[in-house]
Amino acid sequence: MAAKNSPPKPLVALTIGDPAGIGPEVIVGAWSNPQVHDWCRPFVVGHPAILRLACALVAPTISVVEISSAAEAAPTRGAIPCLTACRAEAADVPPGVVDARGGQAAYDALIAAARLALAHEIDALVTAPLSKAALWQAGHHYPGHTELLAELCGVDDFAMMLYLGHDDTVQGPAGLGVVHVTLHISLRGALAALDTPSVLAKIHLAHDSMRPLTKSTPRIGVCALNPHGGEAGLFGDEETTIIAPAVTAAQQAGLDVQGPFPADTLMTRARDGEFDAVVAMYHDQGHIALKLLGMHHAVNVTLGLPIVRTSVAHGTAFDVAWQGRARSTSMVEAIRVACQLVASRPTPAEQ
Amino acid sequence: MAAKNSPPKPLVALTIGDPAGIGPEVIVGAWSNPQVHDWCRPFVVGHPAILRLACALVAPTISVVEISSAAEAAPTRGAIPCLTACRAEAADVPPGVVDARGGQAAYDALIAAARLALAHEIDALVTAPLSKAALWQAGHHYPGHTELLAELCGVDDFAMMLYLGHDDTVQGPAGLGVVHVTLHISLRGALAALDTPSVLAKIHLAHDSMRPLTKSTPRIGVCALNPHGGEAGLFGDEETTIIAPAVTAAQQAGLDVQGPFPADTLMTRARDGEFDAVVAMYHDQGHIALKLLGMHHAVNVTLGLPIVRTSVAHGTAFDVAWQGRARSTSMVEAIRVACQLVASRPTPAEQ
Repeated sequence: MAAKNSPPKPLVALTIGDPAGIGPEVIVGAWSNPQVHDWCRPFVVGHPAILRLACALVAPTISVVEISSAAEAAPTRGAIPCLTACRAEAADVPPGVVDARGGQAAYDALIAAARLALAHEIDALVTAPLSKAALWQAGHHYPGHTELLAELCGVDDFAMMLYLGHDDTVQGPAGLGVVHVTLHISLRGALAALDTPSVLAKIHLAHDSMRPLTKSTPRIGVCALNPHGGEAGLFGDEETTIIAPAVTAAQQAGLDVQGPFPADTLMTRARDGEFDAVVAMYHDQGHIALKLLGMHHAVNVTLGLPIVRTSVAHGTAFDVAWQGRARSTSMVEAIRVACQLVASRPTPAEQ
Repeated sequence: MAAKNSPPKPLVALTIGDPAGIGPEVIVGAWSNPQVHDWCRPFVVGHPAILRLACALVAPTISVVEISSAAEAAPTRGAIPCLTACRAEAADVPPGVVDARGGQAAYDALIAAARLALAHEIDALVTAPLSKAALWQAGHHYPGHTELLAELCGVDDFAMMLYLGHDDTVQGPAGLGVVHVTLHISLRGALAALDTPSVLAKIHLAHDSMRPLTKSTPRIGVCALNPHGGEAGLFGDEETTIIAPAVTAAQQAGLDVQGPFPADTLMTRARDGEFDAVVAMYHDQGHIALKLLGMHHAVNVTLGLPIVRTSVAHGTAFDVAWQGRARSTSMVEAIRVACQLVASRPTPAEQ
């Protein structure tokens, strides 16, 4: 894109998400953070009418400038370039309700931004939340953003890492990533789905995704499934039959990985900086810790895509949408992490 | 015991636990806390030789006074009354190792103190940790203290509540209790064991045990089993088939109980003071939160016994035992909570 000695700030598309949710607000909120403009050249993919409503609510001095291509984006702290990707009807969706037009708008913005990323017209995309129910009402039957992106990118092997940056609570210098082996599935289903290849794959994904953030070999801790790590077989044997073989295989591949450890103690050790990433076996094992450690500034990093994409870790929050109360900390963090991931990508000459 | 208008401070026995562990140290550490003496008249059940070694390590100015009955206990900040319940050989157990003599000593101290409580010679007992492996080597095949106490008291229906007092993190004015429906069992076994009667029983236990601490009707939150609380059946149905009926039955019995809620959000809501107690479905669901919220000051409260008994929530910590590094915060808290439970018991006239 530019001479290696003076790389331009990355061009980052922020997708508007479901207009009935807090996406537009948190985008404008993040825009008001001067650091965002130090890190990158952001612009919005969505619809200017929605964005103008959000500016009126959150930051009336910020204006919206319509653009017709990513290359036109000339962001300033006082002006948000907006590429129209949604139908005008999206601006009519009432706040806080599931509406097919809202689902369609979120879909349209995502597809448009992903195509820009695949065409190398932007460096990264950061997505505001969508409503799965609205997405489905609009006829797009995907569990969420990520599956849709994976299909668009032609990728089968992908995963999400939830990431908390270093702060007063999370002691690790590179923050803490949490990768789940199973996620949106019943606990019973998670037990049935757990196997050595999937644990191993998720260890590798944790390694690959934390590496740009740690800038060295990430230290990975793997959760046990059972209490006390199975207490030597007394409380279950998945530790020895399923998890330990994956840890051993990853170690043999040169990764810095340890475990399985009892999940309760591993989470406190990770918080205290002993690990850069944790591989959790099921949803709540990771999420109980993540929420207690500060979900409001958590970021979703999508692994396995050919494009850089991060996302806020919260949902549409329909219950507080368009009240001017939504916190933009997760959006700011998502932009920061996306820029860090862009910066750590090998240049074409290095590839 | 005394005139109702001027109740004497409760007489509280501290059992020494496994002499190879940190029990003796944390007892002496707690003794050095003046508040402990404001709350109660403590004394130790164990062996004076062990206690003298711990004093030499932690607080050399404190002396040990041998007594031959609980009634003789005249504790001061500078002198620990000690009732001998263990064999002299217990003092020869090397630090930090599993030794049958250590297991026997922990067993002997516990039995002696429990008998004093059952005979109403003391008001409460607070137990230092034992090593299950050492207990078993000594020929006493119990999972831990609690099962042994339950048998001694002739009780079948008992449970543990882990309790964190109010502090900077735990916002509830009465602290936070966590009761587990299943505990030391594999996750697979926990799924098989979960049923409505056991969830209901644990809701009642949470209510009964928090009530003396809240001094009003405790606000109880019940965890879902599956991610997102089962997402309306998409991720499992135990919420509707097993947990919700127990919550409804408890509500009909007049308890202030809500749920099932997704465990990750419930834990943060409980931390922030919205609930006094949480009922967790399995070990890690409760323990991941408890450890992150500050296990070092957690207390075990045994429910369902005819005696008041609390315990430190940590183990023997053989790896740091007899190095003078053990923190006595949990022991201090265990004594405080025991005294609070004694104070809230109905007097004979009220029963």
